[in-house]
Amino acid sequence: MNQPFIVLVTPQLGENIGMAARAMLNCGLEHLRLVAPRDGWPNDKAISASAEALLQMPAVEVYPDTKSAIADCHYVYATSGRPRHMVKPIYTAESAAIEMKARVTSGERVAILFGAERSGLSNDDLMLATSIINVPTSPKFTSLNISQAVLLVAYEWLRVNDTTPARRYDNPESRPATHEEYQGFIDRLEENLSKFGFFQAPDLKPTMMRNIQNTLRRAEMTEQDIRTFHGIVSVLTGSKIKS
Amino acid sequence: MNQPFIVLVTPQLGENIGMAARAMLNCGLEHLRLVAPRDGWPNDKAISASAEALLQMPAVEVYPDTKSAIADCHYVYATSGRPRHMVKPIYTAESAAIEMKARVTSGERVAILFGAERSGLSNDDLMLATSIINVPTSPKFTSLNISQAVLLVAYEWLRVNDTTPARRYDNPESRPATHEEYQGFIDRLEENLSKFGFFQAPDLKPTMMRNIQNTLRRAEMTEQDIRTFHGIVSVLTGSKIKS
Repeated sequence: MNQPFIVLVTPQLGENIGMAARAMLNCGLEHLRLVAPRDGWPNDKAISASAEALLQMPAVEVYPDTKSAIADCHYVYATSGRPRHMVKPIYTAESAAIEMKARVTSGERVAILFGAERSGLSNDDLMLATSIINVPTSPKFTSLNISQAVLLVAYEWLRVNDTTPARRYDNPESRPATHEEYQGFIDRLEENLSKFGFFQAPDLKPTMMRNIQNTLRRAEMTEQDIRTFHGIVSVLTGSKIKS
Repeated sequence: MNQPFIVLVTPQLGENIGMAARAMLNCGLEHLRLVAPRDGWPNDKAISASAEALLQMPAVEVYPDTKSAIADCHYVYATSGRPRHMVKPIYTAESAAIEMKARVTSGERVAILFGAERSGLSNDDLMLATSIINVPTSPKFTSLNISQAVLLVAYEWLRVNDTTPARRYDNPESRPATHEEYQGFIDRLEENLSKFGFFQAPDLKPTMMRNIQNTLRRAEMTEQDIRTFHGIVSVLTGSKIKS
């Protein structure tokens, strides 16, 4: 149980519960608790909207009130989009996730409360939490759908542990060309361009070749790309590849 | 126009278009383009699901195909959740947002393509993009709803510029207590605890007072809290506050 509980307090639409569950599982969160869902539980619309996420998660736990839903938890965050005039620390979704990770790792059971669609959490529910999570939004349009709010909080949880490289390639069929392969193609291209009269002004040749090289280097060609471009030169010149 | 265009290619459900628009506006993105939406445009379900976001944004632009939707753009990202065996750089949503910000700031028009609900983008659409955005997800459940995918990409865009402090308070009615105010209360509490016989073992007094102080300091009391706790001591001891 090394992850927080998501607690939806008096959620109304089954579709939102299902979308929230799907968002949770997208981010590796599996423990959903519901407080007095308006349309009861289980809810067919929720299961359908979850795109099978609810079927892959442990059973959803349903409680009559917020107090009982968090009774076994050591630390509770409340999500809120508007000022409440309560003296509680307010975290961004990112900083909450970082802190939450530290708590969960040291054995605390952590819950995150989300309020109902229109009204959000009541002040009495907010009082039960030690701190508030306020997901940053554009000040011009702050109202987040509940499943979108769950997604952003869950996504920040995922991000804490995510090690996906910022930029990568996914092309097992080919590998990046070496500089020797690049150079072999560029030398051949230059030779053919000279032979076919591309460089009308010989003093501009170094600049033109530099520009062509820069263009091709930006393409980050693979070994296969180099072979393809050799083929193009061969066909256009009626020659064969030098090897 | 200092922001990317969101381009939904052949979206099916109006609800998803509306939820995507809401997510965009939550994150400050206002420019939505649609390629051949299945149910035509305008779409009442989209407007309803957008929670008025579509009414606050510039008019949605509708195009017959992807090529015409990106004709005026200088750089195109395609979102994709699965490997395509195409040689293109793959960015996380975060690293794409950072790069996108640099492009947009230097005057490039940037588009981000999202595919239809079930199938995602076709390989022909992917070919039109220079790079791919792959939103990190849990490997156990990678299928993101289209409006959730739009939200995460838009959220990372928002994050690039977001300066919300990691932790803050929102309590204009009161300010944090000063250490002098803290000390005044603690000294008075200690005096009363001594007088009423709380310290049965005098050699443990320093440790007990240290623990009580640590508890109260963790509460990060406000000036109002200090006054309230003075009031509690006054009532319980039948005394008046010293000033």
